[in-house]
Amino acid sequence: MENLRKHIEEITPISDDEFEYVRTFFTKKRVRKHQFLIQAGDRVACEYWIANGVFRAFYVDDGGREHILQFALENSWLSDYHAFFYQTGANMNVVCMEEAEVFCLTLLAREKLASDLHKMEHFFRMKVTSGYTAQQHRIISLLSRNPRERYEEFGSLFPDIVKRIPKKYIAEYLGISRETLSRIHPAHRRRSLN
Amino acid sequence: MENLRKHIEEITPISDDEFEYVRTFFTKKRVRKHQFLIQAGDRVACEYWIANGVFRAFYVDDGGREHILQFALENSWLSDYHAFFYQTGANMNVVCMEEAEVFCLTLLAREKLASDLHKMEHFFRMKVTSGYTAQQHRIISLLSRNPRERYEEFGSLFPDIVKRIPKKYIAEYLGISRETLSRIHPAHRRRSLN
Repeated sequence: MENLRKHIEEITPISDDEFEYVRTFFTKKRVRKHQFLIQAGDRVACEYWIANGVFRAFYVDDGGREHILQFALENSWLSDYHAFFYQTGANMNVVCMEEAEVFCLTLLAREKLASDLHKMEHFFRMKVTSGYTAQQHRIISLLSRNPRERYEEFGSLFPDIVKRIPKKYIAEYLGISRETLSRIHPAHRRRSLN
Repeated sequence: MENLRKHIEEITPISDDEFEYVRTFFTKKRVRKHQFLIQAGDRVACEYWIANGVFRAFYVDDGGREHILQFALENSWLSDYHAFFYQTGANMNVVCMEEAEVFCLTLLAREKLASDLHKMEHFFRMKVTSGYTAQQHRIISLLSRNPRERYEEFGSLFPDIVKRIPKKYIAEYLGISRETLSRIHPAHRRRSLN
């Protein structure tokens, strides 16, 4: 859990006693590759902090096509946030792509933590604020850039993700069809044809 | 400013003394139709709370095309958030569409307010959290729905905006070309042809 402390301290200093209190709110969970953390329709009990491993959160449309909302690597937070905050059934699926260890935080625990410790309220505000500005950037990119530009921009912004996630999922995240991905990235087409 | 108090109290109760303190952080500003609140390249000094009026925030791409990130009506908050939080030059433009009165909050004032009053930290966290979940919904819609579905969904989610904003701007917000808008909404084409 030492990494969670480091992660919090990127935003706000925290004393030993405070961190001892913070850690009591989390429950550890191991997740195997291909295992679902959230399935569409489920009640979403938790937000997850990823200690290690890789996940993707995706929506499946009426035609059965997958659309990726988020990739989550170590040190990131993940949930179906609408379902989590409003306590409705999940709209998303979250699946494990690399064996993982996560720490679960229920909504009740999260709100109590934020209410008990002003610095944790601050921490959560800062995290959601940076998520908000990153999403604004993504929306502008979806509206204004063509598929090749989006693919190149993603590669320059998130080199760590590109190294660990198959290209077909990155294309889904960027709203790029397989045909277009093959034009952008001929190596992908060659592998697909073999 | 009584509406600002009501707006805050939708999230958290606030005493008379506390509200007296909160209001000292804001500066009132009148904005005329077509006036810019933020222009691309500018330093972004403030976040704005809209007391009344209508604004749109948009990005202009290299080809001169406008892409709309946000409409803001009364009781909403607006800025170029990336530029505001990271104190970089604006990437967006914000223009007034209906004569407006806004209350400006600098980054320094916002952070001091959140730090001095835990309940204001909570208020800002709740506001950005609901913005975050709404943006996730918009990203899924952009990735998974066709233009007609996006247009119909927008109309059912935001009837107040549809009443006050010309259709061509709603199409820009939804990433729908003028040609497609004419097919979805023949009345728009008829007016455009006259």
